[in-house]
Amino acid sequence: VDNRPIGVFDSGFGGLSVLQSLVAEFPNEQFIYLGDTARIPYGVKSPATVAKYLKQNLEFLMTLKCKTVVVACNTASAVLKSETFAIPVIGVIEPGAEAAVATTQNKSIGVIATKGTVNSKAYVTAIHTLDTSITVHQNAGPLLVPLVEENWVDDPITNLIIYRYVAPLLSKGIDTLVLGCTHYPFLLPAIEKVTTGKVNIVRSGPAVAQSLRQTLAGADAAAGASQKPAPTRLLTTDDSSTYIEMARRLTVGLDLAKPELVEII
Amino acid sequence: VDNRPIGVFDSGFGGLSVLQSLVAEFPNEQFIYLGDTARIPYGVKSPATVAKYLKQNLEFLMTLKCKTVVVACNTASAVLKSETFAIPVIGVIEPGAEAAVATTQNKSIGVIATKGTVNSKAYVTAIHTLDTSITVHQNAGPLLVPLVEENWVDDPITNLIIYRYVAPLLSKGIDTLVLGCTHYPFLLPAIEKVTTGKVNIVRSGPAVAQSLRQTLAGADAAAGASQKPAPTRLLTTDDSSTYIEMARRLTVGLDLAKPELVEII
Repeated sequence: VDNRPIGVFDSGFGGLSVLQSLVAEFPNEQFIYLGDTARIPYGVKSPATVAKYLKQNLEFLMTLKCKTVVVACNTASAVLKSETFAIPVIGVIEPGAEAAVATTQNKSIGVIATKGTVNSKAYVTAIHTLDTSITVHQNAGPLLVPLVEENWVDDPITNLIIYRYVAPLLSKGIDTLVLGCTHYPFLLPAIEKVTTGKVNIVRSGPAVAQSLRQTLAGADAAAGASQKPAPTRLLTTDDSSTYIEMARRLTVGLDLAKPELVEII
Repeated sequence: VDNRPIGVFDSGFGGLSVLQSLVAEFPNEQFIYLGDTARIPYGVKSPATVAKYLKQNLEFLMTLKCKTVVVACNTASAVLKSETFAIPVIGVIEPGAEAAVATTQNKSIGVIATKGTVNSKAYVTAIHTLDTSITVHQNAGPLLVPLVEENWVDDPITNLIIYRYVAPLLSKGIDTLVLGCTHYPFLLPAIEKVTTGKVNIVRSGPAVAQSLRQTLAGADAAAGASQKPAPTRLLTTDDSSTYIEMARRLTVGLDLAKPELVEII
């Protein structure tokens, strides 16, 4: 039994979609959410820069006594070397790849993600590590994060844009679509309008929840059944009103404390 | 006569639209362009953070012996205290406001910009400093920068999005529209499809060229008529391939040197 908190990290607030899954799955765990909003977005930055920022953020979360950290950011997960940290650190890419491989029947998987994640080929590599016979089709969707931030989530313009990004993957015959950016689950209803039930959609939240359960069980580190967590602490590195407002809008139903500004470097 | 270079600074590559205007207007001047791509975008960050980054970037350009710097970024211009620097520093907001005030006939001006610029009310303040009787209508267009970066500049989806952002301003009866973000001139043909010649469009590039001419004349600091500038140096703080590729695409016709990676902090 280990009642210390679990850190959830993202460059911004997309990771809140992962937090929602984790809070639902682990009602006794205390979570701390860190958004590195001063340096958002990571998706267009070089791997070396992202790796530097990730290390700084993880070290900061360790000072808050986190027993483990979920990196709820695909760009950062793509450069994560988890063995270099003193606590278990779980990215979203391997769990998402495992879920996709377990789901596909026809061995044709689509991935939609930011340009950075697409260029890193992180999902392609992770899927081929599990099964080299699977074909992976990728497409970048740079407008999707801004659409979530604009809150045009139920909007004909958004449907058109998603159609343009997803249709080329559907035409390749995929039966499984990985949402390779933690913002995208907020667009799930619009994405389902385009996929019309024909493909299985893999989200990071449910996939990483399974990995987290194994990690906690392996280390006997789950919180006690009697722990009643406080509201999730919401830490940001910049006090941007735009993002705080967005976080409130995206996290309806999540019990979040008042945002706190923290200094990482 | 002063043959030292002129710095042009932006958080990313939107400022290249300003550089294009300046190169055309000042054929004897040597320009150096700095894009702080490691910390892009500035539009969602707090004023204190943006001011800190701006100071660091300006100090860096001074080490390169720039005789003056044009801040080709609205977010950074909004927090610029030009009197605190040892060389003349010109933002884009006052020149844009002056051009708009000189253009409007019916004293109703529209401004389209990032959320950060809209929230700062920088154009409202600058316009009212010149003429309190003018009404200023603002609207934020968060999807426009990503659309430029996606290169969907001649696209029905882009026309729909611009219509949604600009139509509310047109319905207020504006006769002048300020493009309050240096990315937006790359969307000018699409914007003109929506405004259909009914409003005057004010861009930062031509507006700031006029201010720069006055600054150089006032200090007798124009380059000699015989100076033949080398290609503009293109400095970035991150070696992101996404942005370098975008810079190449946006700057057709500009004589740019090979991008150089620089370290600011």
